Amino acid sequence: MTLARTPALDPRGIHAEVARAVQDTVIRLCPGVSAIAGYHAGWLTEEGAPAVGGLGKALRSRLAVLGGAAAGASTGMCVAAGVAVEFVHDFSLLQDDVMDGDTERRHRPAAWTVFGAPAALLTSDALLAAAAEVLLEADSPHAACATRVLLKTVRALVLGQTRDLAFEQRLDVTPEEYLAMAAGKTAALISCSASLGAVLAGAPTEVVMGLAEYGTNLGLAFQLTDDLLGIWGDAQLTGKPVLADLRRRKKSAPVVAALNSGGLHALELRDFYEDPGPLSETDVPRMALLVEQCHGRRWTIDRIALHTAEALRCLSGLRLPQDVAAELAEIAQSVPSRRK
Amino acid sequence: MTLARTPALDPRGIHAEVARAVQDTVIRLCPGVSAIAGYHAGWLTEEGAPAVGGLGKALRSRLAVLGGAAAGASTGMCVAAGVAVEFVHDFSLLQDDVMDGDTERRHRPAAWTVFGAPAALLTSDALLAAAAEVLLEADSPHAACATRVLLKTVRALVLGQTRDLAFEQRLDVTPEEYLAMAAGKTAALISCSASLGAVLAGAPTEVVMGLAEYGTNLGLAFQLTDDLLGIWGDAQLTGKPVLADLRRRKKSAPVVAALNSGGLHALELRDFYEDPGPLSETDVPRMALLVEQCHGRRWTIDRIALHTAEALRCLSGLRLPQDVAAELAEIAQSVPSRRK
Repeated sequence: MTLARTPALDPRGIHAEVARAVQDTVIRLCPGVSAIAGYHAGWLTEEGAPAVGGLGKALRSRLAVLGGAAAGASTGMCVAAGVAVEFVHDFSLLQDDVMDGDTERRHRPAAWTVFGAPAALLTSDALLAAAAEVLLEADSPHAACATRVLLKTVRALVLGQTRDLAFEQRLDVTPEEYLAMAAGKTAALISCSASLGAVLAGAPTEVVMGLAEYGTNLGLAFQLTDDLLGIWGDAQLTGKPVLADLRRRKKSAPVVAALNSGGLHALELRDFYEDPGPLSETDVPRMALLVEQCHGRRWTIDRIALHTAEALRCLSGLRLPQDVAAELAEIAQSVPSRRK
Repeated sequence: MTLARTPALDPRGIHAEVARAVQDTVIRLCPGVSAIAGYHAGWLTEEGAPAVGGLGKALRSRLAVLGGAAAGASTGMCVAAGVAVEFVHDFSLLQDDVMDGDTERRHRPAAWTVFGAPAALLTSDALLAAAAEVLLEADSPHAACATRVLLKTVRALVLGQTRDLAFEQRLDVTPEEYLAMAAGKTAALISCSASLGAVLAGAPTEVVMGLAEYGTNLGLAFQLTDDLLGIWGDAQLTGKPVLADLRRRKKSAPVVAALNSGGLHALELRDFYEDPGPLSETDVPRMALLVEQCHGRRWTIDRIALHTAEALRCLSGLRLPQDVAAELAEIAQSVPSRRK
C-alpha cells in the first residue's frame, strides 16, 4: 500500500517549527527550569542570554517529523511528536550527566555543574511532564494512545539504563544482553521518534510497526557506532578523551564481544576489567589492542552493518512517499560513518 | 446540589484495593525498579523479601479514594487515581532524598543509600511514567483530562521545589513567597489527590474545584505542621533529630515569619542564618527561642488554623454524601494535632 501525503507538507519547514515550538514550550515552563533547559539544549548561555546553536543534530525530532510526514500526519501532529521526543531526550541526558558525574555535554559544561544537581534533576522532571502534556494536547483523536507509547518508551529507557548499571558489577555480560540493554537505553526512544507521528495520524498498524522497527535498528546501529567512537573516536570530534570508555572500564559493545570471544587475549582483557586498581598509560592502549585482537571491533562493525541493512529493509517494506523514504534511508546509511 | 453515591461504594474497601493495585503495578515494572520501589514504599526488605508495613499513612491515595467516592467515581476510577498519586508521591520522595542527601526515610535507610543514587533516580522516573500510564488506562472518557491534571501537578511540584532551592541563597523570603512555594512543593499533589477521582468521574467543575481547594488548604496546613515538627517535634516520633530544621538553617515557615517580624530578635536570628560557619550546641536552642520570641511559632499555628478552617469551608460548600464528607473533614481536623 502506498500512503498518500498532503502535498503541502515540507519536512524541513516543519522541523524549523519544531525548534520554535521547543523554545516556546520551554519558555512557558517556570523560570528556573526554562533557563536550565534552554542552556542544556544549547540556545541559552549560562546567564540566560540567547546563544548561537540550539537543537544540535536533533536526530529524534527529525525522525518524528519525517515519520509523521510519511504516515500522513498533519504539521501540528509532527510538531507535537518532535517536541515530545526532544524533551524526553533532554530529560534523559540531564539526568544521565548527574548520575554519571559527567562534567561536559555538547562541548560545554554539563548543566548540573553550572546550576547544581538538584536543579538539573528538577528540570529533567519538568521536561518529562511537559513531553507527555504536549502529546496529550495534540490535535488528534489518537493523542492519548501516542502518550501511552511515549510513557512506555520512558519505562523501556529506564529498563535499559538499569541493565547498563547492573553491567558495572558483572564480567559475564553476553552480546545478547548487551543488545537488549541498548534496545532500551538508546533504541527505544529512536524507535518511538520514528513512529510517534504515525500513531498520532492513526496510520495502519503495519506502518506504525514498520517505522518503529526501522527506528529500533537505527537506534542499535547508532549506539554501536557510539561505542566504537568511545574507543577509537577522534577526541577532537567526539569531545571525549582518547580511549575514554576503556579508561572507565565501560562494558561497551566491542568489549563485551571481545570478553566473550574465548582464548588468551580475552583472559588478559578480563584481568584488566577485573582488577579495580588504576590503569596506567600503557594499560589503556594495550586493552584497545586486545579488543581488536579478540575481534570486538570487527563484531561491532558487522553488527552496525546488519542493523543498518535491517533498518533499510523495514523502510522498503512500507512503500512510503519517495522523498521522505529517501531521507529516512539516508539517515540510516549515514550512521556507520558517524565521526561524532 | 447533593451528589448521589453508588450505595455499594466503600472507601475503606477501595483503599485496600489501591494498596493491592500499587503492589501489582510495581511488580510489573522491571525487576531492578520493582525491588527499589517496593523497598521505598515499605513492603519489601532490602533483599526483596516481603516486609511488614506498606503504604504508611497513604494520605494521598486515601484522599483520592474519598474524593472519588464523594464525586460518584467508580471503584476502578478511585483505584487508578489512588495509585497515580501514590506513585507521584514516591517519585518525588525518592528524588528528594537523593537531592538533599537525606539518609533516612520512614525510619529506614533511604533507598539511594541501599541501591545507589542512579538506581533510585531511575526508579523515580519509572514511577512517574507509570503514574501517568495508570491514569491514561483508567476506564473513563476523562482519562486524558485526568492525566493532564496530574502532569500539571508534577510541574507545580517542580516549581515549588525550585523555589525552595532558591530560598537557600536568600534571607529576604517573605511569608507570601513561602506560601507560594509550599503551594507547589506540598499542596499541589494533595490538591490533585483530592480532586483526581472527581475529574475521572466527569463531576461538575464546582465539585472538582471545591475538592481541589479543600486539598490545597489541607496541603498548606500539612506543610506548616511539618515545619513546626521540624523544630519542636518529638525526635522519637518524627525520626528526625531535635531542632533539625534549625541545624540545617532551613527557611521553614516559623523562621520566615520570624525573620520578617522586625526588631532586635529578628536581627539576631538573621545573623545565625547569614553566618555560614558551624552552629554550636547552644546556638540551636537560642535560635529556637528567637523564632518563638519573634512570634514565628504563633504565626505558623495561626496559619494552620486558618487553612484548616478554609479546607472545612470548601467541603461544606459541596454538599457531598455525609459519610465521605465526614471523613474528609476529619482528615483536615486531624492535621493540626499531627505528631509525626
